[in-house]
Amino acid sequence: MQTRTRQQGDPGSGDRPGTRERIVRAASALMQRQGYDGTGIKQISQEAGATLGSVYHFFPGGKQELAVAAVHRGDEEFSAILREILDGHDDPAEALAALTRVLAEGLRESDWADGCPVTATALGTAGRFPDIQRAAADAFTRWQELVVAKLRASGIPETEAAELAVTVISALEGAELAAQVSRDERPLLLAGRHLGLLLAACRGGA
Amino acid sequence: MQTRTRQQGDPGSGDRPGTRERIVRAASALMQRQGYDGTGIKQISQEAGATLGSVYHFFPGGKQELAVAAVHRGDEEFSAILREILDGHDDPAEALAALTRVLAEGLRESDWADGCPVTATALGTAGRFPDIQRAAADAFTRWQELVVAKLRASGIPETEAAELAVTVISALEGAELAAQVSRDERPLLLAGRHLGLLLAACRGGA
Repeated sequence: MQTRTRQQGDPGSGDRPGTRERIVRAASALMQRQGYDGTGIKQISQEAGATLGSVYHFFPGGKQELAVAAVHRGDEEFSAILREILDGHDDPAEALAALTRVLAEGLRESDWADGCPVTATALGTAGRFPDIQRAAADAFTRWQELVVAKLRASGIPETEAAELAVTVISALEGAELAAQVSRDERPLLLAGRHLGLLLAACRGGA
Repeated sequence: MQTRTRQQGDPGSGDRPGTRERIVRAASALMQRQGYDGTGIKQISQEAGATLGSVYHFFPGGKQELAVAAVHRGDEEFSAILREILDGHDDPAEALAALTRVLAEGLRESDWADGCPVTATALGTAGRFPDIQRAAADAFTRWQELVVAKLRASGIPETEAAELAVTVISALEGAELAAQVSRDERPLLLAGRHLGLLLAACRGGA
């Protein structure tokens, strides 16, 4: 899901982030916008203000290893956003609606360019690079687990919560993609509303 | 959404398809698997069994024009699948469940490589190439319209049907992507089930 790699400060530090951190940020931001194949190591080094030598020093596995780091970064950043928004609302339906507004705002602010960094990096590479595929699958799983915990706390039984969480993450991913492609926040806002109706229907039947 | 460019015959013809047709098929199949930036014109010409000269003869706009044609092709192919499955079931919920099974089967058969050709081509290029972005947006709109017609026929009021159709397509796209990344059909099958519950909830409240 969309995050804001470029805009975030270095947590816990007022200083300029270290070289490795700048490289990961640059890789994540560029692959978020251009995908894996659209992004070159040289461009990453330039964007990070690092030499090619230091990129290979930190990432001897080259672009593939950088992509895995970028996916992990996207995973962590969206997990933090998700956790914060889920914690900020008692009702999971309200939390999901709020989340779609945040994602829509982020997309709009980037002129619809910065979608989900995990998806953008993994799509088109998952079949070729198992490491990237696994990192992306782990990200989806972690996001689903955060949603499961929220749904369980709202009284939805475990199996049903686990299944709903898969669809919540799928629907948010797809809605972000549809919003990006249509340059319109509507798919995200509708997904938020409809996921709320789905949760209500499941709680009603629980 | 996932289609089967490689496996389909040339409708209405027993002969080997013409050069332009072979080029579009190759572009669509390659971009579906590798995305826009991962696919080169040379590879397209080789896969199509056509010279580079004839690729540029039919597509003077080069790879960008080919990508638009590939997106249109993905649009048409998925529209045909969607129409057939929606027509084959009276109940839209059953149709959506059947559709997710078909998409899951196609993904599994391609070893999780061939997802949605429209998404794979548009993601990472939408911000750079407005023609590709518009073609992808048109595809999403057309698929939504097919779903709207089905929902209307099942008694869901127009505005609600139009909104639900957006979420149906978003959720299918996202579930296909999640299935591809996790190499597991579960996100698609769950999306089918949950979309059915959502439609039931909306019809109950209509």
